[in-house]
Amino acid sequence: MTFSVTVLGSGAAIPLTHRNPSAQLINVHEKLYLIDCAEGTQVQLRRNRIRLQKINHIFISHLHGDHYFGLMGLITTLHLLGRDAELNVYADPRLEEIMNLHLDASKTVLNYPLIFHPLNTEVSEVILDNRFIKVTTIPLKHNFPTCGFLISEKQAKPNIRKDFLEGKSLANSDYKQIKSGKDYTDEHGIVYKNEDITTSPRLPRSYAYCSDTAYDESIIPLVKGVDLLYHEATFMEDKAKDAEAKFHSTARQAAEIARLAGVKKLLLGHYSARYKNLQALLNEAIEVFPESMLADDGMTIEVWPV
Amino acid sequence: MTFSVTVLGSGAAIPLTHRNPSAQLINVHEKLYLIDCAEGTQVQLRRNRIRLQKINHIFISHLHGDHYFGLMGLITTLHLLGRDAELNVYADPRLEEIMNLHLDASKTVLNYPLIFHPLNTEVSEVILDNRFIKVTTIPLKHNFPTCGFLISEKQAKPNIRKDFLEGKSLANSDYKQIKSGKDYTDEHGIVYKNEDITTSPRLPRSYAYCSDTAYDESIIPLVKGVDLLYHEATFMEDKAKDAEAKFHSTARQAAEIARLAGVKKLLLGHYSARYKNLQALLNEAIEVFPESMLADDGMTIEVWPV
Repeated sequence: MTFSVTVLGSGAAIPLTHRNPSAQLINVHEKLYLIDCAEGTQVQLRRNRIRLQKINHIFISHLHGDHYFGLMGLITTLHLLGRDAELNVYADPRLEEIMNLHLDASKTVLNYPLIFHPLNTEVSEVILDNRFIKVTTIPLKHNFPTCGFLISEKQAKPNIRKDFLEGKSLANSDYKQIKSGKDYTDEHGIVYKNEDITTSPRLPRSYAYCSDTAYDESIIPLVKGVDLLYHEATFMEDKAKDAEAKFHSTARQAAEIARLAGVKKLLLGHYSARYKNLQALLNEAIEVFPESMLADDGMTIEVWPV
Repeated sequence: MTFSVTVLGSGAAIPLTHRNPSAQLINVHEKLYLIDCAEGTQVQLRRNRIRLQKINHIFISHLHGDHYFGLMGLITTLHLLGRDAELNVYADPRLEEIMNLHLDASKTVLNYPLIFHPLNTEVSEVILDNRFIKVTTIPLKHNFPTCGFLISEKQAKPNIRKDFLEGKSLANSDYKQIKSGKDYTDEHGIVYKNEDITTSPRLPRSYAYCSDTAYDESIIPLVKGVDLLYHEATFMEDKAKDAEAKFHSTARQAAEIARLAGVKKLLLGHYSARYKNLQALLNEAIEVFPESMLADDGMTIEVWPV
């Protein structure tokens, strides 16, 4: 079952010809979720051959343009392409005002339900809970109300052993009972203990997205042990003062959070346009946390429990 | 002296990987003007190595997203790059509301003056008149208040003949007098008639941008004889009914306007995404008006009087 992150934009505030600002597409069990939506995101989705209409949930971390200026374009394109399924947008309450003004000014009546979920960036809250995942907000320390998102896969049910199933024809209700942990009694009254006829399910996976934020240890309990942490690294340590002043992080600081939170892997991004070669930025993180890697536009990372 | 049109987007409503929606950069005497600003325009400007900060005037034809969704991104980037020169935006009055809401929601105070000029799309008006050009609106027939723009170069002053200047040292005031049509009297009292000491200046050039619009002969007097006419051609004749219903034009209709208005050249664009190969669309126009050509993202056309 898929759990992957596709980076649609790995740059900071200014769109460049080779690097878009923030947007990521998360695929969990072929359900698609979009996190942030900078200008150009819909074209980045096309470039990665992602089916736009399969996106049902869009999470916006905050209302700086490099995280949401592509949203109205995507909403309009979904409409023009004939969408009828509802689309859920989770964001700062003022985004609803902005979306409504755009739609009203252009006299557009969407032919699908656009459902807006206002976020409170002050506290960590569960904002989506479905069969496959739970999405929890991560309050971040930026110069604007901002939150990250933790996507936690649900624990899968145990698997029924194939050697047990051989020669038996179980009813659907039996399957459900066994998968929910019950023992099984056959037509002769023989009892099979659940632990003998099932194997453990694979471990659930988790991904945390943290952009934009200053170095802030208060997020550590929320991202503890995740399989993959995306943490912004706008600057390197030589610009630590700029990072502090602008409520951004250095690559070293991102790695320090990863280390302290005991995550499995760290993905760096949101690079300032000043860094032409990112190897030094990566090296700075690796010194603190060896399992660091660079996000790049168009890359897809499979999230696996390590 | 330059007068050129760079096509930044030649497609209709939906941004594609190979074709952006509407935006054009007009260079007249190294002053840059932007017409329309779809999502992705700032990156298209970068791709064409156009210096963003040299743009001082932006004209928006109407408030459909494929003509303005890139504007807030461009405004923000100019701010982040340290602009201090004023920026003039000419558009539907509601765009001011939209811009202000975005800036307010993101708590952005621009470090340059953003001057908004509301347009009345019902009448043709001169909206800019400087040393080099005059910009006049062209009311268009769309399903939304829309106008095109006519950019007319000012008549240049006559040139003073080099053979006359040889061996003379004229004062600056003499140059101005001769260029304004006056005769010249030298220190011996000899009178030189203006027509003998000057040559005619080159003809002023003109460009008209008409998108989006249904076939509408009422624009003909406004675009009569222009050196280059951009006219939308969303559809071909096989979709003439769609064109009519959606207040767009076919390639043949665009050519018919060009023919009736006696323009020198016709530039087609705003193609529906359904047309993969545009040769048939071009052929349809050429049958009616041979001097037709296809706009394509990234092309630059020099406007010369024919």
